[in-house]
Amino acid sequence: MLVLVTGAAGMIGRKFVERLARDGRLGSEPIEKLALTDVVAPAEPNAMFTVASRADDIAEPGVAQALVKDRPQLIVHLAALVSGEAESDFEKGYRVNLDGTRNLLEAVRGVGHGYRPRFVFASSIAVFGAPFPAIIPDEFHLTPLTSYGTQKAIGELLLADYTRRGFLDGVGLRFPTICVRPGAPNKAASGFFSNIIREPLAGKEAVLPVPETVRHTHASPRAAVAFIVHAATMDTEAIGPRRSLSMPGVCVTVGEQIASLRKIAGDKVVKRIRREPDAAITRIVAGWPERFDPARATSLGFRAESDFDDIVRAHIEDELGGKVE
Amino acid sequence: MLVLVTGAAGMIGRKFVERLARDGRLGSEPIEKLALTDVVAPAEPNAMFTVASRADDIAEPGVAQALVKDRPQLIVHLAALVSGEAESDFEKGYRVNLDGTRNLLEAVRGVGHGYRPRFVFASSIAVFGAPFPAIIPDEFHLTPLTSYGTQKAIGELLLADYTRRGFLDGVGLRFPTICVRPGAPNKAASGFFSNIIREPLAGKEAVLPVPETVRHTHASPRAAVAFIVHAATMDTEAIGPRRSLSMPGVCVTVGEQIASLRKIAGDKVVKRIRREPDAAITRIVAGWPERFDPARATSLGFRAESDFDDIVRAHIEDELGGKVE
Repeated sequence: MLVLVTGAAGMIGRKFVERLARDGRLGSEPIEKLALTDVVAPAEPNAMFTVASRADDIAEPGVAQALVKDRPQLIVHLAALVSGEAESDFEKGYRVNLDGTRNLLEAVRGVGHGYRPRFVFASSIAVFGAPFPAIIPDEFHLTPLTSYGTQKAIGELLLADYTRRGFLDGVGLRFPTICVRPGAPNKAASGFFSNIIREPLAGKEAVLPVPETVRHTHASPRAAVAFIVHAATMDTEAIGPRRSLSMPGVCVTVGEQIASLRKIAGDKVVKRIRREPDAAITRIVAGWPERFDPARATSLGFRAESDFDDIVRAHIEDELGGKVE
Repeated sequence: MLVLVTGAAGMIGRKFVERLARDGRLGSEPIEKLALTDVVAPAEPNAMFTVASRADDIAEPGVAQALVKDRPQLIVHLAALVSGEAESDFEKGYRVNLDGTRNLLEAVRGVGHGYRPRFVFASSIAVFGAPFPAIIPDEFHLTPLTSYGTQKAIGELLLADYTRRGFLDGVGLRFPTICVRPGAPNKAASGFFSNIIREPLAGKEAVLPVPETVRHTHASPRAAVAFIVHAATMDTEAIGPRRSLSMPGVCVTVGEQIASLRKIAGDKVVKRIRREPDAAITRIVAGWPERFDPARATSLGFRAESDFDDIVRAHIEDELGGKVE
């Protein structure tokens, strides 16, 4: 099968591509060719199949058409301008996240002749906006409070309509916060959720700016890749017309995150977390959703870790070669 | 004040314009100039203020900019391709209902220099899609099952984001079914709700294709105009970030509609309704929402008729000069 991945240079994109290279197939279908694109040319993995990587701007006219002209059976559309930048640069956010997505959907529709690929769209819990119920149901309405969330919600609506019309077979995945994010400490307000696990495990100090009572929902990068693989291979008949699904995750307090770290890596590692309360970050985080009801996704076979211990272990295995400093 | 009305040649547009011509003001503000546009040049009312009418296609580049260049303080955006045509002509529907709306929002943003008009957007209950709860709350999520509903839901999302960003002061109105629609019998599946009142009152026969137990929510054209006037003049501070509101209406069965007609116009008029069950129409109507909870709209001062008798009386007063055949 032919596979197209947009946003393939991002963290989730790279990990999904690595998994395809390792498996060589998706479900029962061997991969023949993998096309990767992003604003910078994505790294090409060592794989048994052909890989073509290119730098593209799908918001430019004609680019999306070129990407789908050899009719990939699977399109994984991860490309997006991140939340902070979509908020600070209004025009760029709409250009990348709305026009880019619409161009890709329109390019698929334009192929015609019965072409109807599986189309996996990375959405976000940012489609929901406060005030929230304690547990946000799949049927909670879309009232984003950011331009990024607005653009993702519009993407969900388009995905559902293009699917209903028979132009493609769409699945939208609302990712929870990804933890533990690999790489350098992140300055995003949510960065500490990963920092307090990743940095101590690497022998470094991390700052905790919020109380240990803060509650949030997490899934590992490995789980995020598994969501995409499942969305790419599942029987979509059972989804019905509501094509976007809140993904499962592990709902824990910061205190429970730290307890997992202690259990797996010991007190010496936990002591590298420095408490430095930050009122601004605490206030931002207080406005975030804590818990989702992923009933539809779990009934359709999507699986995340069952507790935070597993998330810490996944990070140690996947990023640290099984070793803790 | 300067007022711009798009879709001003449509039924609601014409009635809103007539009301402005009659009142000469909106709230406490006298109207100085009224700009009207539609795909055909709207009729100009006799009014104390200046009226400029033109035929325009707001999906064309530059058109929306020309419409807002003299900075209307109020924009009433009613222009839309109707549901049936947006379903049969996919491209035209997205062009008019999505690109047209976005062009107008972008033109407003482009004016800059503190320009921040009140922007009243005609949305629709078509933003909701089955399965429904018995009463659809304002917080029910947006899962349209038509391209028209998708385009209106996207309009609601854009309206909220442009408002949040401070580019305009948006209010979205989800209209219920308008009854009694004046004019010739309508072939839309919903046409009978109006036909069975309007035609008998005009001395003509009407066909009822569904059982009398069918339940639906209605507001008169007069109430629809009042919704727009209220949205144009209300204090929007209390709306909060969720800018689109399900409007109130009268929830009745077809049997209750007929009982009102009998009470007001007598048995002779009711006898002009001919029962001719139509399985296809009955099946379509069975998938429609019956009842909404307009709690947010009513708490914000939006008012519809309190019973169906008032809807029948409004039609007789506004369309028949108070006389029944």
